[in-house]
Amino acid sequence: MTTDTSGDKSIFERRESQVRSYCRSFDAVFDRATGATLFDSEGNSYTDFLSGCSSLNYGHNDPDMKAALIAHITDDGIAHALDMYTSPKAGFLETFERLVLAPRGMNHKVMMTGPTGANAVEAAIKLARKVTGRTNVISFTNGFHGMTLGALSLTGNSGKRGGAGVAMSGVTHLPYEGSLGEDVDTLAMIEAMLDNGSSGIDAPAAFVLELVQGEGGLNAASREWVEGIARLATKHGAKLIVDDIQAGIGRTGSFFSFDDMDIEPDMIPMAKSLSGFGLPFALTLVKPELDVWTPAEHNGTFRGNTHAFVTARVALEKFWSDDAFKDAIAAKATVLTEGLQSIADMIPGARLKGRGMMQGVDVGNGDLAGAICAEAFERGLVIETSGAEDEVVKVLAPLTTPMDQFKDGLNTLADAARSCVATKIAAE
Amino acid sequence: MTTDTSGDKSIFERRESQVRSYCRSFDAVFDRATGATLFDSEGNSYTDFLSGCSSLNYGHNDPDMKAALIAHITDDGIAHALDMYTSPKAGFLETFERLVLAPRGMNHKVMMTGPTGANAVEAAIKLARKVTGRTNVISFTNGFHGMTLGALSLTGNSGKRGGAGVAMSGVTHLPYEGSLGEDVDTLAMIEAMLDNGSSGIDAPAAFVLELVQGEGGLNAASREWVEGIARLATKHGAKLIVDDIQAGIGRTGSFFSFDDMDIEPDMIPMAKSLSGFGLPFALTLVKPELDVWTPAEHNGTFRGNTHAFVTARVALEKFWSDDAFKDAIAAKATVLTEGLQSIADMIPGARLKGRGMMQGVDVGNGDLAGAICAEAFERGLVIETSGAEDEVVKVLAPLTTPMDQFKDGLNTLADAARSCVATKIAAE
Amino acid sequence: MTTDTSGDKSIFERRESQVRSYCRSFDAVFDRATGATLFDSEGNSYTDFLSGCSSLNYGHNDPDMKAALIAHITDDGIAHALDMYTSPKAGFLETFERLVLAPRGMNHKVMMTGPTGANAVEAAIKLARKVTGRTNVISFTNGFHGMTLGALSLTGNSGKRGGAGVAMSGVTHLPYEGSLGEDVDTLAMIEAMLDNGSSGIDAPAAFVLELVQGEGGLNAASREWVEGIARLATKHGAKLIVDDIQAGIGRTGSFFSFDDMDIEPDMIPMAKSLSGFGLPFALTLVKPELDVWTPAEHNGTFRGNTHAFVTARVALEKFWSDDAFKDAIAAKATVLTEGLQSIADMIPGARLKGRGMMQGVDVGNGDLAGAICAEAFERGLVIETSGAEDEVVKVLAPLTTPMDQFKDGLNTLADAARSCVATKIAAE
Amino acid sequence: MTTDTSGDKSIFERRESQVRSYCRSFDAVFDRATGATLFDSEGNSYTDFLSGCSSLNYGHNDPDMKAALIAHITDDGIAHALDMYTSPKAGFLETFERLVLAPRGMNHKVMMTGPTGANAVEAAIKLARKVTGRTNVISFTNGFHGMTLGALSLTGNSGKRGGAGVAMSGVTHLPYEGSLGEDVDTLAMIEAMLDNGSSGIDAPAAFVLELVQGEGGLNAASREWVEGIARLATKHGAKLIVDDIQAGIGRTGSFFSFDDMDIEPDMIPMAKSLSGFGLPFALTLVKPELDVWTPAEHNGTFRGNTHAFVTARVALEKFWSDDAFKDAIAAKATVLTEGLQSIADMIPGARLKGRGMMQGVDVGNGDLAGAICAEAFERGLVIETSGAEDEVVKVLAPLTTPMDQFKDGLNTLADAARSCVATKIAAE
Repeated sequence: MTTDTSGDKSIFERRESQVRSYCRSFDAVFDRATGATLFDSEGNSYTDFLSGCSSLNYGHNDPDMKAALIAHITDDGIAHALDMYTSPKAGFLETFERLVLAPRGMNHKVMMTGPTGANAVEAAIKLARKVTGRTNVISFTNGFHGMTLGALSLTGNSGKRGGAGVAMSGVTHLPYEGSLGEDVDTLAMIEAMLDNGSSGIDAPAAFVLELVQGEGGLNAASREWVEGIARLATKHGAKLIVDDIQAGIGRTGSFFSFDDMDIEPDMIPMAKSLSGFGLPFALTLVKPELDVWTPAEHNGTFRGNTHAFVTARVALEKFWSDDAFKDAIAAKATVLTEGLQSIADMIPGARLKGRGMMQGVDVGNGDLAGAICAEAFERGLVIETSGAEDEVVKVLAPLTTPMDQFKDGLNTLADAARSCVATKIAAE
Repeated sequence: MTTDTSGDKSIFERRESQVRSYCRSFDAVFDRATGATLFDSEGNSYTDFLSGCSSLNYGHNDPDMKAALIAHITDDGIAHALDMYTSPKAGFLETFERLVLAPRGMNHKVMMTGPTGANAVEAAIKLARKVTGRTNVISFTNGFHGMTLGALSLTGNSGKRGGAGVAMSGVTHLPYEGSLGEDVDTLAMIEAMLDNGSSGIDAPAAFVLELVQGEGGLNAASREWVEGIARLATKHGAKLIVDDIQAGIGRTGSFFSFDDMDIEPDMIPMAKSLSGFGLPFALTLVKPELDVWTPAEHNGTFRGNTHAFVTARVALEKFWSDDAFKDAIAAKATVLTEGLQSIADMIPGARLKGRGMMQGVDVGNGDLAGAICAEAFERGLVIETSGAEDEVVKVLAPLTTPMDQFKDGLNTLADAARSCVATKIAAE
Repeated sequence: MTTDTSGDKSIFERRESQVRSYCRSFDAVFDRATGATLFDSEGNSYTDFLSGCSSLNYGHNDPDMKAALIAHITDDGIAHALDMYTSPKAGFLETFERLVLAPRGMNHKVMMTGPTGANAVEAAIKLARKVTGRTNVISFTNGFHGMTLGALSLTGNSGKRGGAGVAMSGVTHLPYEGSLGEDVDTLAMIEAMLDNGSSGIDAPAAFVLELVQGEGGLNAASREWVEGIARLATKHGAKLIVDDIQAGIGRTGSFFSFDDMDIEPDMIPMAKSLSGFGLPFALTLVKPELDVWTPAEHNGTFRGNTHAFVTARVALEKFWSDDAFKDAIAAKATVLTEGLQSIADMIPGARLKGRGMMQGVDVGNGDLAGAICAEAFERGLVIETSGAEDEVVKVLAPLTTPMDQFKDGLNTLADAARSCVATKIAAE
Repeated sequence: MTTDTSGDKSIFERRESQVRSYCRSFDAVFDRATGATLFDSEGNSYTDFLSGCSSLNYGHNDPDMKAALIAHITDDGIAHALDMYTSPKAGFLETFERLVLAPRGMNHKVMMTGPTGANAVEAAIKLARKVTGRTNVISFTNGFHGMTLGALSLTGNSGKRGGAGVAMSGVTHLPYEGSLGEDVDTLAMIEAMLDNGSSGIDAPAAFVLELVQGEGGLNAASREWVEGIARLATKHGAKLIVDDIQAGIGRTGSFFSFDDMDIEPDMIPMAKSLSGFGLPFALTLVKPELDVWTPAEHNGTFRGNTHAFVTARVALEKFWSDDAFKDAIAAKATVLTEGLQSIADMIPGARLKGRGMMQGVDVGNGDLAGAICAEAFERGLVIETSGAEDEVVKVLAPLTTPMDQFKDGLNTLADAARSCVATKIAAE
C-alpha cells in the first residue's frame, strides 16, 4: 500500500499541523513492522523500544491476531456497529470474563467507552461524581490521564494544563509517593489533610492514580502507599480509580498493574495495548454496584471497536491462558534491570525507575536523556524519554521481543549512553 | 470469527455496562455486513438506515477499501505508530490535499487528533481559546459535539450535560436557527446580544456549529443564517468552527456540508465516515495562521489511525475524484424527500427535516417516532430517532445504497409508519 | 470635624487608589450636607441629584434620624454586636414587620447579611442554590448586582465582569425586556429556551432581576414582563429574586418596586436607602419555607449595623406610616417626567427611561450625557449618567427634596442640556 | 432608643432568619455598652471577651470617638458620599499616612472597598489576578477570609465552602504551619510542590494568609514560616496578601500583625477594628506598582464609610501616636498567657494557641470548649470558641480593658473551666 512518496516528508511539512511530535524525534517514514522491528520506507530496520507508548505490548502485527483480523475482514465481519450487539463483542466479553475477570474474582462490568484512554478516564470520573454526588476528584503529582478537558484537569504537567484555556475545576492535586523527596511521608500528609475538615479540600468523589506513572517519569508507587490510598478512599467515601492504561496489560509484569496488591479498584480505565494490535480501543471496568448509568448517558460513535474485539480476544487467549507469558516478562524484566543498571553506573547520580518491563533510568536532566535517545536512534533503536523534565530514558519494548533482540537493544542503548557521556565529559 | 454464542445475549447482560444503548433498540446479535445490508448471527438480514450514525456513508465493507486494508495487513503494514511519519499517513495526506483541499483553495493544516469526534472538537476549542486569549465559546440549541468534558460543555441536551457532575464553564448557548419558532430572527437576536457590552456574554473565542444538527433533530440551517454567523464571528474576533463530523463526507450532498455556502471556517473537526470503513479516525482542519500549537500540546496515543489512513485514501480516490458520487447522492436525496413526504402526509402536523441524505420526518412526539422505528425494525430496517424529544424519524442510509434497496427501505418505513398511525387511530 | 486641609486634594492623589471614581466627576471636597443640599469645604453648595446612587432617598441628615442616632450614641447604645440580640434590632424588626411586611401579607423572614447590596445578593443566590439543589442562576442584560465574585457573575457589563480574572460559572445571562429592540418579545424567547431541554440552559435555581435597572440605563420592565418572568420561575421550579437594592425604598414610587405587580418574590435583597441615613446596611427577605440556613451558614462581622437599625426604624415610622410620602413621590415624579421630557425634546432621538423618581433621559451617547452632567455640576448640580454606554442622564434626587429646589434642579439640568446641545450644534 | 420590648425575644424568633448565630450562645438582648462592659435590656452587665470578633479592639463607645462622631453628626457632617472626596476622608487618609504608613516606610495606596472584610479580600485577589495574569490563588488550611463567593473560595472550612452551591475554582489550598502535625515541615513541602512543574498546581497569582488564624483556631505562624512564604511568593512571581482583618490593629500586639517580621506584603486587607468604633469599614492597602485599577473597576455603594473615617482618625491619634498602647497590650498579653495557662493546666492535653491579645486554649474538643464558654456566660462573661472543631476557648477582650476587669474576667473563665472539668470528671 505504500505510495511512491516513500521517504519524502514534504507532505507532512506542508499539511500536517505543527502539533505533531514523535516524528520530530525519529526522522524516518515508517512503512512496515513485525514483532519488535520497524522498517522505514528506505528499507532500514529499527528495534522498537517505544511500542507506541505501551500500545504494542505484544509487538507489531502478531501473526495470530493478524490472521484473525484478515479472516474477519475477508468474511465481511462487522467493522462498525455503534454499541449494538455483535458476535465479536460477545467473543471478546466472554474471553475477558473467562481469562481476566473470573480468575480474579472480579465482578466488574465492562463499559465500552470511546476508543481512547482519555475517554475511559472521563467516563470513570463522571461516574464517580454521579455515584457520590461529589465533585472533587483527587489526582497526583506527575500523573497523566489524557488531553480532553476532563482528563486534562487530572493531569499534573503545567504546560499541558495551560493549554486548556479555561478553568479546570473539581480536581485537587496531591503529592504522589516520593514527589516531595524520599523521606517525606506523603500518605500521612494526605491523610492529615483529608481528616481536617478545614483543609479546604472538598470531600472527594474519587482518587485517580497510575501505579507506575508512564509519562511522569516511571515513578512506581509502593505496595504500602497504594494500599494506603485505597484505605483512604474507603475511609472518605471516595471511589478508587486505577488508571491502568499504560501500566496494565502485562507491562509491569502481570495483567493488571495491581495484581500483586491487596486492593479492589472501583473503576479501571484501560486502553493502549488492550486491542493487542495497536488499534484504538478502550474500556472502563466498573464495579456492578456503581453501574448506575442510564443508557447512553456516556456514549460515543466509536465505543467498542469491532476489529479490536477480534484481535483483543486472540491476544487474551494467546498470552493470558496460562502463566507462561507472565514468567517470560519477569525474566525479561530482570535483564532490563541489569541493562539499565549498567547505564546508571556510567552516570553519577543516575538511578533506576519503574518496575517490570516499564523501567528506565533517570540520568538527571532532559538534555542528556534526549541526547542518549537521539544517539540510540542513530544506531537503530526507537526509544523515548519520560518525566517532568524528560530526564528519564524509558524502555517500553514489546513484551514479546525475542531475548536476543532485546539484549542487543539494551547493548545499543548502553553504547549510546557511553558515547553521550564521553562527549559530555569531553565538553567539560 | 464468530463464536458458538451466536444469538446468546447473556454475556452482554452479565458483563456489559447498563450504559449500552443502541442494542436496546435492535434485538439481534450482528455478525456480518456488506453494503447497506446487515446480517445477524441467526442469518437474518436487515437494511441499514442508520449507518453507524453516519459513520458508514460508503456502506459496510466496501470491496476496494476491504482489499486495500487486507493487503496492508497482509504485508505487515504499520498498524500503530503514534504520530510518527508513515507511508499510509503520507498517502492519506497527499490524497486529501489533492482531492479535497486543493480544489477548494483551502490551505488548512491537518491536525491528527484522537480518533473520536469529541477529541477533534476538544482540540478545536482549545486552539480557539489559545489563539484568541478568550475563554467563552458559543454553541447552539440542540447542538451535539461529544461527551468528553470540553465537548460536552458545548452540548445542548440537559440530560447529557447533567451527567458531567461538575460545572462546565466557558460556554454560552445561543438559539439555533428556528429553535425559538420559525418567525423569530435568531441571527438578529444573537447580533444584538453580542453588540451589547452589558449583555453578560463574554467576548467569544469561537462559534461552534453543525450545519445540520444530527442528534438535535436534523435542523438544517439556511445559507443566510450560516453566513450571518460567519459574519458575526469575524465582526467579534471569534473563530468559526464548523463541526462536520456527522454532516460532512457527503452526507448532505457534498464533501463538506458548507461547500455551497460562502464561508471559510477557521477550523473543521471531522470524524465518523472519514475512514470510509467505520474505523475510529478523526482530524481537525486548521487554518495555517492558527496552527500555533507547540509539539504535543494536544496529543493522544491513537491520533492518526494507520489502518484508517489506508481505507480513507481509497474512499477519497473512489468517491471524490469526480462529481459522479455527488450527483448520485443528489438523485437519491430527491427520492428520500419524496419517500419522507409520503410519510409526513399520513401524520397531521408532521414535517420534513434536514437536507441531502440527512433527512427525516418530525412526527410530533417521541412515542410515535419510537414506535415507527421499532415497527420498521420488525420489518428488517435498522433506523433510529433524533431530536430533543426523539421526535424525528431519521434516515441515515449509506450514500452507496443501491437505488432499489433504498426505495424498498423507504417503502418499509412507510409501511411501518402506516401501521403505527393505524394503531394510534384505533386506540383513540 | 473638618481639618485644615479643606479643599486640598493632594492626599487623595498621594494615597487613594486609582480605582476611585465619583470624585473624578465632582471636583470638590464635600464637607456637610442636609436634605438635598451638599456643601463643599470652600462653602459652595450643590443640589444633590445623585443621592448616593439612591442610598439617600430621604436626603442627607434627616433631622429625626439624626436626633435618634445622636441620642443612641450619647446613651452608649450598642454600636456593634455581631448578630447578637439587641434592643435596636428588635425595634427595627418590629417596625419593619408592622409597617412593611404585615400590611402586604408578606411572611418573609429577615436575613441580616453583610451591610452591602452585594452581600445581600450573594446570600440570596447561595440560598436559592441550596434550596433547589441546582447551580444555574439566570440574570439579565444590563443587570448590575455588585462586585464580589458571586454578585459579579450576575452582572452584565463586560468591563466589570472582565475584572474577575477567573471563570464565573453558574450563571446564564438572558435578554431583559427591550434589550433586543422594542419589537422583540424577549419573554417568549426566554420561555422557548427554557422549555427546550436541548437549549443548553441548565435548569435554573433562580431568576435574579431588577425591576428598574439602575446602573443598566434605567430600563423599567413592564408589569406584564415581570409577571411573565415570575410565572416562568414557578413553571421551572426556580426561585424569584427581586433585587430591590436601588429601585426599592420608595425610589419608584412605592416601598417595594413591585408593590403594584402581582408577584410574590421568594427573596428580596435590600440595601442602599434601607438605613435611611446613608449608613451601610443590607438584608435579604426570604420566604419562610426557604429559610433553611443552618446558624452562621452565611455570616459576616458587620451583619446588622446597629446604628442603622436606629435610623431605619425612624425612617419607616416617619415616611411609611401612611400614604402621604407615597403621594408626594408621585407628585414629584410627574414633575420629573415633565422636566426630562423638555430635555428630550431638545435632542433628536432622545427618550425617557425609568419610572417614579428613578427616571432619566437617554440622549443617544455617552459623550453628550457626560457633557450635560459635567455642565450641570458647573452649575451646582450633582448628577450622573447610567447605561451600558453611559448614555442616560439619570436623576436620583432625594425623594424628600423640596419641590422648589427640585424644580430649580431640573431647570439647571435643562439649562445644562441646552448649553451642551448648542455647543454640539455649533461644532457640527 | 430602646423600645418597650426589652427582653422580649419573640420578634427575633418570628422574623429573623434561622441563619442568626451568636444570639444562640448569648441569651440576652443587649442594649448599651461601654469599654469592656455590655448591658442587657434587663440591666445585667457582662464583661466582653469577644469584642465583636476583634471589631472592638478599643472597647465599646470610646468617649473620644463618641464625642467626635456626635459632633460630626450634629454639625451635619457628610454621612454618605459614595467615593467622592470629603473632609473626613482627607482627615483619615492624612492621619493613616502620618501614623501608620510613613513610620514604616510603606508606600502603599489605600483602596476603599465595600465596608466588609470579605470585600477587601475580594478586591485583593481580583487585583492579584489582574496584575499577574494568573488565576490560581493559594490559601491555607483553617484559613477564613469571608463568605462572598470569591472570599469563600479561599476559606478552608468544608461546611462553609459547601454552602456555595457552585464550583469555586481558582484556588489551591495548602497546609498552614502545623496543620499536618508539629514535625511536618509544611514550608518545605509547599516549596517542593511549587517547584515541580508537574505537581498540578498552577502558577500562583497570590498567597493569601492570616498570621494568626482567628476563626481557624488561633494558629499563629512562626516568623520563619511567614518569611518563607514571602520568599516563595517572590520566587514564583506571586503577590503576598496578608489578611490582617482580625489579627491587625493591635490585636497581636502591634498595629500590623507582621510588624516584627521581615516581610513586605503586596496587599493588606483590613476591616473589623479599623473604624475603632465597630462601624462597618474596610480597605485594602496596595503597593503603588500594583495600583493599576481603572476607575470603578471594583466599586460599591458603601466604600468609605464617612462616620467611620471620623472615628478611625480619632482612634489612630489616640492609640497609635506613640508606643504607650503597644506597651500596654504587651503587659496585658502576659497576663492573658498566665491566665490561660492556669486553665490549660486543668485539662490533660490542653495547649495554648495564638499570640498577643489573640490567645486561647485548645481544650481538645468542641464539647468541652462550648461548655466552658456557656458556663462563663452564666457567670457574666461573653466569650466564644474557635477552630475547625470549635475546640479552642478564644479570648478576644478589648485591648483597652482595665487590668482589674481583665483579670476578673480571666478568673471567671478559670472558674467556669474548673466547673466544667469537675462536671466532666464526675460524669466519667
